[in-house]
Amino acid sequence: MTIRIGILGYGNLGKGVECAIKHNEDMELAAVFTRRDPAGLKIQTEGVKVCSVQDAPSMKDAIDVMILCGGSATDLPVQTPEMAKHFHVVDSFDTHARIPEHYAAVDAAAKESGHVGIISVGWDPGMFSLNRLYANAILPGGHDYTFWGKGVSQGHSDAIRRVAGVKDARQYTVPVEAALEAVRSGSSPELTTRQKHTRECFVVAEDGADLARIEKEIVTMPNYFADYDTTVHFISEEELMRDHAGIPHGGFVIRTGTTGWNDEHSHVIEYRLKLDSNPEFTASVLVAYARAAYRLGQEGQKGCRTVFDIAPAYLSAVDGAELRKHLL
Amino acid sequence: MTIRIGILGYGNLGKGVECAIKHNEDMELAAVFTRRDPAGLKIQTEGVKVCSVQDAPSMKDAIDVMILCGGSATDLPVQTPEMAKHFHVVDSFDTHARIPEHYAAVDAAAKESGHVGIISVGWDPGMFSLNRLYANAILPGGHDYTFWGKGVSQGHSDAIRRVAGVKDARQYTVPVEAALEAVRSGSSPELTTRQKHTRECFVVAEDGADLARIEKEIVTMPNYFADYDTTVHFISEEELMRDHAGIPHGGFVIRTGTTGWNDEHSHVIEYRLKLDSNPEFTASVLVAYARAAYRLGQEGQKGCRTVFDIAPAYLSAVDGAELRKHLL
Repeated sequence: MTIRIGILGYGNLGKGVECAIKHNEDMELAAVFTRRDPAGLKIQTEGVKVCSVQDAPSMKDAIDVMILCGGSATDLPVQTPEMAKHFHVVDSFDTHARIPEHYAAVDAAAKESGHVGIISVGWDPGMFSLNRLYANAILPGGHDYTFWGKGVSQGHSDAIRRVAGVKDARQYTVPVEAALEAVRSGSSPELTTRQKHTRECFVVAEDGADLARIEKEIVTMPNYFADYDTTVHFISEEELMRDHAGIPHGGFVIRTGTTGWNDEHSHVIEYRLKLDSNPEFTASVLVAYARAAYRLGQEGQKGCRTVFDIAPAYLSAVDGAELRKHLL
Repeated sequence: MTIRIGILGYGNLGKGVECAIKHNEDMELAAVFTRRDPAGLKIQTEGVKVCSVQDAPSMKDAIDVMILCGGSATDLPVQTPEMAKHFHVVDSFDTHARIPEHYAAVDAAAKESGHVGIISVGWDPGMFSLNRLYANAILPGGHDYTFWGKGVSQGHSDAIRRVAGVKDARQYTVPVEAALEAVRSGSSPELTTRQKHTRECFVVAEDGADLARIEKEIVTMPNYFADYDTTVHFISEEELMRDHAGIPHGGFVIRTGTTGWNDEHSHVIEYRLKLDSNPEFTASVLVAYARAAYRLGQEGQKGCRTVFDIAPAYLSAVDGAELRKHLL
């Protein structure tokens, strides 16, 4: 028996979930839901229908887990609790500061309806969070470091596009190799924002625009660039399309700490992701946790969960005895 | 209220557990148990007694979790099921091929007595296994690689010591940097034993021993060295004590895989440990899982578990709301 997945929202993340389902034999795509006109949406999976989000509740018997692929700013705070009334749900809510209230909202809805909701699934929050937790539990009193990149930051790319005279732009966040090495040495350095990451911008300017003024506006922009060493490259629209069409990302979670009666031994735990496609990798994590949501639901559990609350074996299609034999 | 830990076996691992308890405020060392004469054993923690292993069952009300620090060859297969009759237990059983039978024995004993037993805890099996499982669930159809080192292999050091004319020796397993880079590139290389690791030996020879013969016996030794590029350095006993007294280890778990409708995007998940002290780090993982064993026991769970079966939040002394706020 396969796990029937619904996708709500068909942007980059929703498309990634569709691809990830194709990679997992125990899953099938049941339907894609959209807030727009379903007739205008073409998906890749043969024979699967696109429905209006309004029809979702009526399809509760055809879908085991709904994966929510909207944005964290305005979509998920409304959609995840709403869908948890009808389905087991998984989302990638990533506004760190608002996780407690989102958790409470999903927990209330899921408990009342008897469903499982897993929030903040992906790589950060998600796999990075897991690695922070495991490493903190093993090395209490140590130091945590998170580096992001090299990867495209959508928010920073958008900020550049709002500068007058800019036609298009792509911004890469780049971890500073010397800072990584200092952390790996176990010396527990205190690192400033500027020391940890640089920002590299590829900008397509409008014809006749004042490039010096654009560059200055970017590198001095508060919050986004002023605290970083920022490099601006002006390129053609063709070059942007050819060389910067992908959405790579990744990063490092490192914890260093000591053991021994007098803290005489030092240890480094490092987790690294190098991702060609940020949304497709996030989608692959969502799908693994959809399997967990389904199984927890089968056990009769209900309420909100995060990656912290779920035993790793629930993510795997392989049974416990096989896991112990081959992966332990 | 603190979690009261018993330690059975006071070798390097048991000493490491004693140190790890000191680093965790919610834990205390209740007693150390030994098969030898307790009077002959001096431990570091003030005011804690050393007892004979035969007295352990009578102390079941004074100990919440017993951590077993014996060897996997002959100690743990007997001791872990035996102790599970009286306590929640955690061990670092690491004979991969015999995990299924060890699991069954501990499961039967723990279920009958109403305790929780967590086996094969440490870094491999343990944290490396967890990373294999998570990465396999996220990237089905990918490739797994495990590299060990740079670190001291006790088994290989012992093998060298058995060569005639050798007084003492230390063997390091070293991952080949070029192989690591090939794996990280996402090219999914097929690597031979020789391509993945080299072996570096530091040997103290007896006076007048035939060094050329010793070196040849080492590098051609079946199973241990013949399949590797092995380097032998003859050094003095003083140099061995001065430069090779530590027990460092570590390694890498890497999984590569693809996503996308046509597998067009490639991803690398890498977990790395760099450990000054193999036994102290293993002990730190054992202690975190002792916390989990205690909590699962408080919930009334019973039977055998591995790291695959335990939700990460159980390892942390911090409560769920705080974890979501600060680590997610």
